[in-house]
Amino acid sequence: MKRILVINGPNMNMLGQREPGKYGVETLEEINAQLALRAKAMGIQCEFFQSNVEGELVTALHEAEGCDGVILNAGAYTHYSIAIRDAISAIHTPVVEVHMSNIQAREEFRHTSVIAAVCRGSIAGFGADSYLLALYSFATPAP
Amino acid sequence: MKRILVINGPNMNMLGQREPGKYGVETLEEINAQLALRAKAMGIQCEFFQSNVEGELVTALHEAEGCDGVILNAGAYTHYSIAIRDAISAIHTPVVEVHMSNIQAREEFRHTSVIAAVCRGSIAGFGADSYLLALYSFATPAP
Amino acid sequence: MKRILVINGPNMNMLGQREPGKYGVETLEEINAQLALRAKAMGIQCEFFQSNVEGELVTALHEAEGCDGVILNAGAYTHYSIAIRDAISAIHTPVVEVHMSNIQAREEFRHTSVIAAVCRGSIAGFGADSYLLALYSFATPAP
Amino acid sequence: MKRILVINGPNMNMLGQREPGKYGVETLEEINAQLALRAKAMGIQCEFFQSNVEGELVTALHEAEGCDGVILNAGAYTHYSIAIRDAISAIHTPVVEVHMSNIQAREEFRHTSVIAAVCRGSIAGFGADSYLLALYSFATPAP
Amino acid sequence: MKRILVINGPNMNMLGQREPGKYGVETLEEINAQLALRAKAMGIQCEFFQSNVEGELVTALHEAEGCDGVILNAGAYTHYSIAIRDAISAIHTPVVEVHMSNIQAREEFRHTSVIAAVCRGSIAGFGADSYLLALYSFATPAP
Amino acid sequence: MKRILVINGPNMNMLGQREPGKYGVETLEEINAQLALRAKAMGIQCEFFQSNVEGELVTALHEAEGCDGVILNAGAYTHYSIAIRDAISAIHTPVVEVHMSNIQAREEFRHTSVIAAVCRGSIAGFGADSYLLALYSFATPAP
Amino acid sequence: MKRILVINGPNMNMLGQREPGKYGVETLEEINAQLALRAKAMGIQCEFFQSNVEGELVTALHEAEGCDGVILNAGAYTHYSIAIRDAISAIHTPVVEVHMSNIQAREEFRHTSVIAAVCRGSIAGFGADSYLLALYSFATPAP
Amino acid sequence: MKRILVINGPNMNMLGQREPGKYGVETLEEINAQLALRAKAMGIQCEFFQSNVEGELVTALHEAEGCDGVILNAGAYTHYSIAIRDAISAIHTPVVEVHMSNIQAREEFRHTSVIAAVCRGSIAGFGADSYLLALYSFATPAP
Amino acid sequence: MKRILVINGPNMNMLGQREPGKYGVETLEEINAQLALRAKAMGIQCEFFQSNVEGELVTALHEAEGCDGVILNAGAYTHYSIAIRDAISAIHTPVVEVHMSNIQAREEFRHTSVIAAVCRGSIAGFGADSYLLALYSFATPAP
Amino acid sequence: MKRILVINGPNMNMLGQREPGKYGVETLEEINAQLALRAKAMGIQCEFFQSNVEGELVTALHEAEGCDGVILNAGAYTHYSIAIRDAISAIHTPVVEVHMSNIQAREEFRHTSVIAAVCRGSIAGFGADSYLLALYSFATPAP
Amino acid sequence: MKRILVINGPNMNMLGQREPGKYGVETLEEINAQLALRAKAMGIQCEFFQSNVEGELVTALHEAEGCDGVILNAGAYTHYSIAIRDAISAIHTPVVEVHMSNIQAREEFRHTSVIAAVCRGSIAGFGADSYLLALYSFATPAP
Amino acid sequence: MKRILVINGPNMNMLGQREPGKYGVETLEEINAQLALRAKAMGIQCEFFQSNVEGELVTALHEAEGCDGVILNAGAYTHYSIAIRDAISAIHTPVVEVHMSNIQAREEFRHTSVIAAVCRGSIAGFGADSYLLALYSFATPAP
Repeated sequence: MKRILVINGPNMNMLGQREPGKYGVETLEEINAQLALRAKAMGIQCEFFQSNVEGELVTALHEAEGCDGVILNAGAYTHYSIAIRDAISAIHTPVVEVHMSNIQAREEFRHTSVIAAVCRGSIAGFGADSYLLALYSFATPAP
Repeated sequence: MKRILVINGPNMNMLGQREPGKYGVETLEEINAQLALRAKAMGIQCEFFQSNVEGELVTALHEAEGCDGVILNAGAYTHYSIAIRDAISAIHTPVVEVHMSNIQAREEFRHTSVIAAVCRGSIAGFGADSYLLALYSFATPAP
Repeated sequence: MKRILVINGPNMNMLGQREPGKYGVETLEEINAQLALRAKAMGIQCEFFQSNVEGELVTALHEAEGCDGVILNAGAYTHYSIAIRDAISAIHTPVVEVHMSNIQAREEFRHTSVIAAVCRGSIAGFGADSYLLALYSFATPAP
Repeated sequence: MKRILVINGPNMNMLGQREPGKYGVETLEEINAQLALRAKAMGIQCEFFQSNVEGELVTALHEAEGCDGVILNAGAYTHYSIAIRDAISAIHTPVVEVHMSNIQAREEFRHTSVIAAVCRGSIAGFGADSYLLALYSFATPAP
Repeated sequence: MKRILVINGPNMNMLGQREPGKYGVETLEEINAQLALRAKAMGIQCEFFQSNVEGELVTALHEAEGCDGVILNAGAYTHYSIAIRDAISAIHTPVVEVHMSNIQAREEFRHTSVIAAVCRGSIAGFGADSYLLALYSFATPAP
Repeated sequence: MKRILVINGPNMNMLGQREPGKYGVETLEEINAQLALRAKAMGIQCEFFQSNVEGELVTALHEAEGCDGVILNAGAYTHYSIAIRDAISAIHTPVVEVHMSNIQAREEFRHTSVIAAVCRGSIAGFGADSYLLALYSFATPAP
Repeated sequence: MKRILVINGPNMNMLGQREPGKYGVETLEEINAQLALRAKAMGIQCEFFQSNVEGELVTALHEAEGCDGVILNAGAYTHYSIAIRDAISAIHTPVVEVHMSNIQAREEFRHTSVIAAVCRGSIAGFGADSYLLALYSFATPAP
Repeated sequence: MKRILVINGPNMNMLGQREPGKYGVETLEEINAQLALRAKAMGIQCEFFQSNVEGELVTALHEAEGCDGVILNAGAYTHYSIAIRDAISAIHTPVVEVHMSNIQAREEFRHTSVIAAVCRGSIAGFGADSYLLALYSFATPAP
Repeated sequence: MKRILVINGPNMNMLGQREPGKYGVETLEEINAQLALRAKAMGIQCEFFQSNVEGELVTALHEAEGCDGVILNAGAYTHYSIAIRDAISAIHTPVVEVHMSNIQAREEFRHTSVIAAVCRGSIAGFGADSYLLALYSFATPAP
Repeated sequence: MKRILVINGPNMNMLGQREPGKYGVETLEEINAQLALRAKAMGIQCEFFQSNVEGELVTALHEAEGCDGVILNAGAYTHYSIAIRDAISAIHTPVVEVHMSNIQAREEFRHTSVIAAVCRGSIAGFGADSYLLALYSFATPAP
Repeated sequence: MKRILVINGPNMNMLGQREPGKYGVETLEEINAQLALRAKAMGIQCEFFQSNVEGELVTALHEAEGCDGVILNAGAYTHYSIAIRDAISAIHTPVVEVHMSNIQAREEFRHTSVIAAVCRGSIAGFGADSYLLALYSFATPAP
Repeated sequence: MKRILVINGPNMNMLGQREPGKYGVETLEEINAQLALRAKAMGIQCEFFQSNVEGELVTALHEAEGCDGVILNAGAYTHYSIAIRDAISAIHTPVVEVHMSNIQAREEFRHTSVIAAVCRGSIAGFGADSYLLALYSFATPAP
């Protein structure tokens, strides 16, 4: 059975509360639960990690070495954390970058991702479905 | 039955021939055929358009007004065609931007998308699967 | 009788449908018809051309060589089409640049016109009246 | 009867003397006199103000609150006076920006207008006719 | 008794009228009157000066040489007046920069203050209270 | 009774030891103690938090949701922590940004605050009094 | 016998008419005819294509796949057409970039060629002889 | 007898008081008086004007039209006053730019002079002698 | 006996595993062990600290106050951590910056070190020997 | 008989040894010898000069005043030697810039030529043939 | 008797021949001879040095250590020679920068002087008189 | 016995005299002598070269082809000499870049090294010890 680690970065623990007009009313727990269900149906086991601390995200990526894939929403760190970029490069597990909002349609400083170049691919703008699409990208055969 | 228009921009007609190490050996016709099959299974009817001419892509977008969605790989025009951006804004159909390669991992000038901000979302880096993931984003319920 | 060619660029064929809050509800045909009437009253014959294709706008400008003036709304191409700029330089007919919206009050990338420097003058922000003011600039004596 | 205030900025008092190859041989008084005549024919009353002092232009704009429109040639202040920009925002009277020369065809630093974004529209490049076209933009019905 | 000079720059005379959603409905006179009262209670005598003319603000700063402090809202000149910056450097009186609005939350060009570096400190974003907080910074002992 | 949380970022625990010429000889504990006293006199209860870890500051802001206000000296993170910026946006509690030194008078890279735009206001340059002025901004009525 | 395709971009059809001081009085047909003659003498067969439409130039490059070389004067598209750049990369035929004028001696925006990096080499500044020198570069043995 | 107008800009009236370490202890009156004496010895009549108001410097330059030369220390306006630049262009009198300090050795923003390009020449860094050297440049024969 | 603290930043715990082509096959523990041995021979006692968390590196630097020197490989934080820069400034212990790879020969964003300016010196490009050279710099007499 | 001076700049004396994958295995002497032969056949006499010293290249250009043409490969000085640019402007002999490699396909800093604007034309990317093509550009009639 | 060294940089040996419209018809020898005469009258002994080689100018500056002053026209090196800048800093002799033309009125790249900041002052735009004014700046008492 | 060439660039011959506060009181000869002694103890033979002329440094690097290593302090040329960079690339001998001062702690323009990317490594900030550390980097086994 494939193992996929879903890593969420800073402020993602506030989902549901935080600017619901932008991020919806679902909490991260609810999103994760639904994702786990869908994954199971595809024969994939999902594990979840969230931290506001950049260095803990780095460590979590290191520990993903054994997984079949990582779905990473690095939140604000997307835009400046070269440490996270290096952590992605340091492991052999493919990482897919996701964003719930369309970051290109927001403030200028959110248009740059310092991690995209070392990820397998990027998915942005589909709300909670961004995670789901990332999950599909790891499925074989495609659902 | 939902109708989705798949629009491909300049040089996409060279797929299979063009830098196969980067873009794979499948032709655009083959990719389209497989996508149509998968779409049909989801109850979606796919139509296809390709042009090397920026203005014809603009017109194709205008004519997508009646569709349920557009999957757009604008190729090189992604990086400078404000005309295509305006065409996307001019219609009410949601547009999903796709790229086969991870454009953030290529030359600096490919890191900017002038159309992303007016698309619903973006998917990049999954080869031919980028189209498939975009298709999923239009499916209800998710596959 | 003076001959003035009115050239409209990409997406202008969507007027009336496209973001009516920004561009009004009149179609391009309606604007043209009114302009033709006003021109006639001033002893000017108006001709009209619209294309979404940059190269066709270039060709239309070449063919304006015999006219007394060109009123050009290059739409999105305003901001990057050096080809259109060169076409304006290549003919002897004076060209007046018009925009319906105030492009300086919109997105940063719309603040630059690569064609303004080779036009006789520029008029922006007066909706459909921008064309009319451009027409007046060709009238002798002024209306 | 409509009241339009015509405000001219720094160095405009030198018209006729100053670089006549660029600005013509008419003095500002002569341009104003002709404009007043044309305005009268359209049922518009023109008033005139000129100053080389940025702050006096700010004050003149404040005092235009009761007028039906302002025609503003801010001269060199166009390119850096955020104070004049704020004065335009501070009143409810619509302001039309005019320039006699085509500022986009001159030095790089004249390509930027810090006031354009808060004006109703802009007209540049038609010599003394730039004022006349601005006047037309306030006429109802159009002349 | 301490003497504090409160200097207001361009367009501040329009307070109450100008974009009340952004600047409130109080006039500058009302704000000054309340400030004078509060100052008096702290044993401070406030004097007030307002001008739209950059050079008159320069002169006012020169004349503040004998005061115990200056509270300066330079308005739009904040962003480009090196002349005012030099005037602050030319005197020995400490100057506190104030802004009613949070200038960092507004247009990009308002994020730069050319005078901040030569002021004792800066206070922005508290509406009319910005002046009051500046006043407190001069009080001994603190209120 | 109002509750205000005072959050201090990296290196603020070194106050008193660190570059005393720039930051004074008082320790953070001493500054906090005096602030608590002054707050109490205004009927405000102050709580204090300090961390060198960006993510812990993010979490502290989340936990400030129930407070009446936050006084935040984000230290060096002021200049690049979009994570902290997002944490401020994620809560409804107003946040006031403070700096002991005048950051505009220091190195170029300290002139930018990525958090200022989402704070209610900013206060910089008054040493330990910066905290006190921020406290006053939360007092009702003003002291 | 070697086959070389000579592709000319926008506004090159105006040669002879367009700014003769800059581009000479020969028409494109005349230049082509002379080039064909010289080529024949070297045992090379020249074919010619001109279009103002960017996408048609892209297609023409695709169709050059079977040729021994391409001489490309992309005109204004030189400076921004990533689509043409990608078309050059998509074929195996070597492409030589030519310009009649010395583009480095003209406006700033003409100093950048987005296609040069994927061409075999570049020749600029020799008027109609630029094409001839490009032809020589394909000759074996050199003439 | 030659007539030279010496124009001093903002904050120059503070000479002697203002940062004497940088500008010396002489007042502007003293500098002017010595300059007048030296000029007289060379058969030149000096006149003097100082203002803190940008627009008054513009007007003073207009009024210099009849003089044989202008010595201009525009102070801080040197770095941004396009209005003063235009005033220099608007007259036929040669203008020599002077600065007491070496502006290239000071803050970055003082390295740019927007007026230098339209002056005959520039002299900087010689303290009060900068004026004297400028005066020499107008003397015939050289002293 | 001298005490030197060797601090390693994010991803350095992956040495040996991470991109061995770039960083070698030695683990951090092995590098540290060899360094400790060499240090001992020079009469220096080495202590070691590694963390992926920026704020813990800040704290570690604070705690180095009593040491004779710090050898710091800040990893990715080198390029943006002003917090670490401030921590270095906050202590009196000299800090030597080291990098195993030649950061100037890698991606553009690795060419900038925000901490170099406050370190005693920098050593880069010698693999594990970079630490050794840094150690030598603290030895007296030189080895 | 025409006289052409061939000037080679820094490191060109290392040809054959230096990065042969990029520059080929021929030495500069061999290239020069072949060029001299071909020139002779066209009735042109070639002279050769090479130096690593920028100022000696300047002097060589001065001494080319009497020649019919200069073929200049300025090597690395191409990108920053304004002194060489000025030397080209200082003489009346036409200068053709050549490069063996396609400098636009190399590092960013090699994309700029500070001398191109004052040369007659430029040829790059054809290896040793670049010199030959430059030679042809001086031949009459063309070979 | 004072000793002043006059150093001229690259291409200055071409004066009289080189672009006489810009630099006049006098040769450097003639300019030097006249300067020597004037200097003698002021009790100053002038020595002269010219080189096209940057490093020889560096050495000449080192050897000026014993002189009372240096008049330096660094020509094109003005804009990029940090080596010459460092040579000026390395000696105690005051250096005055001169230019015959008004470098601010020429190409953009000539607006920057990397040596100005370490010179005593700068004089530009007075033709050969620029040297004379520089000489005056060393005279005591002023002539 | 290993042979190491130590190359010093412009102004290094002024050591001891030049800004001793920054560079110490030792002359280059003294530094070299001590280095030679230490090298001898490690079984390394040091040779020395110094020049102020960029092109002579280029030539010296060419002549280092046979050595085991080069220690290069390129002085000011570090920041702009692409010619020296190319010379380093042109040889097979490893080059170590050294600086006595910490160039990152000095002026902005000294933060860029155009040669670092082609050196084996860089050492900066240790005064004369920078040379010694570079020497150690060539020693086997390490001292």
